[in-house]
Amino acid sequence: MSATILYMSISLDGFIAGPNAEPANGLGDGGERLHEWVLTGDPGGELGPPTMVSSGVNGQVAEEVMSTGAVVAGRGTFEPAAGWSGDHHGGVPIFILTRQRPYGFAADWPLVTPVADIRAVMAKAKEAAGDKNVLVHGAGVAQRALSAGVLDELELSVVPVLFGAGRRLFDGFGAEQIELKRTRVLEGERGVTHMHYQVKR
Amino acid sequence: MSATILYMSISLDGFIAGPNAEPANGLGDGGERLHEWVLTGDPGGELGPPTMVSSGVNGQVAEEVMSTGAVVAGRGTFEPAAGWSGDHHGGVPIFILTRQRPYGFAADWPLVTPVADIRAVMAKAKEAAGDKNVLVHGAGVAQRALSAGVLDELELSVVPVLFGAGRRLFDGFGAEQIELKRTRVLEGERGVTHMHYQVKR
Repeated sequence: MSATILYMSISLDGFIAGPNAEPANGLGDGGERLHEWVLTGDPGGELGPPTMVSSGVNGQVAEEVMSTGAVVAGRGTFEPAAGWSGDHHGGVPIFILTRQRPYGFAADWPLVTPVADIRAVMAKAKEAAGDKNVLVHGAGVAQRALSAGVLDELELSVVPVLFGAGRRLFDGFGAEQIELKRTRVLEGERGVTHMHYQVKR
Repeated sequence: MSATILYMSISLDGFIAGPNAEPANGLGDGGERLHEWVLTGDPGGELGPPTMVSSGVNGQVAEEVMSTGAVVAGRGTFEPAAGWSGDHHGGVPIFILTRQRPYGFAADWPLVTPVADIRAVMAKAKEAAGDKNVLVHGAGVAQRALSAGVLDELELSVVPVLFGAGRRLFDGFGAEQIELKRTRVLEGERGVTHMHYQVKR
């Protein structure tokens, strides 16, 4: 059965972006450190643009992300990414949780649908994904989905670094404890540990 | 060679205590959830007091904690624990990072030494521990030790629960990234994952 799965790269101390994150600096200062594991090659060098890792444990997790059948994200993720130019991966439907038209939203992006309600956006994405899973991305969406009881699973890629400051994945979404079931732990390359949990209900 | 090692149980979202933590409620509301893995038996029942787990992966980690040769903690850990009645485990020396006499400190506790400076307290504990490791415990001490560059390793026991609120282990100790080396991941019982890292310098 298809599941809504939050995929996020986080520092060991729980940050998903460095300090001073804003639309023009979406990952915050130094935030790219959290996404190095996804890339191969020489991002800053002369060997051409980096490509997505395709081998090893990290490649397996990246492949799972790219095999999802729909995307749910918030404006805070969509806008700094320039809306992925209207196609996150493989032409799958993209649902943006927002009450207003996202900045940068282009009228000729048929894959992108703004939805105002967290339950509605997750339901639409699940329907659109069919028997594939739904990629959920972003801190705001994650917290709302957890609070509303519509997040099924989490895959956190824990990067071996302490940020000390920045934007947190979990930032006070409420005082109710949510129990999880650990379903997989993968020791990826570059010291990245991929931890998978199901939300118990 | 002996190392200073932070041992902490944390929720997946990084909390070490629930909301409303104070000296009379040291773990905060619901915070005991984070320490269930250490205990065996029936904590709330009629089968007698709980004892420390001694088997399995969780038993292995608990045994490592109890094999350390000295303890470093702050007042925020020492006071709610009533100073462990002057003996944390096995009669090893206890060093409390504090500028004032901790509340509840008894004059006839020869194992307990207050020390005002983070570098000094870690150095004294390392010397006292000899060839054993030093157990470092508490968020305040952890953040100060990391900032001062005197924490060698971290062992985080990640409990499969989201707290949503409470006291964090890492709460804004600075914007400088600290790189870590993952040295061990153990999948413990009850869904607890023990993650060990060395601090790179």
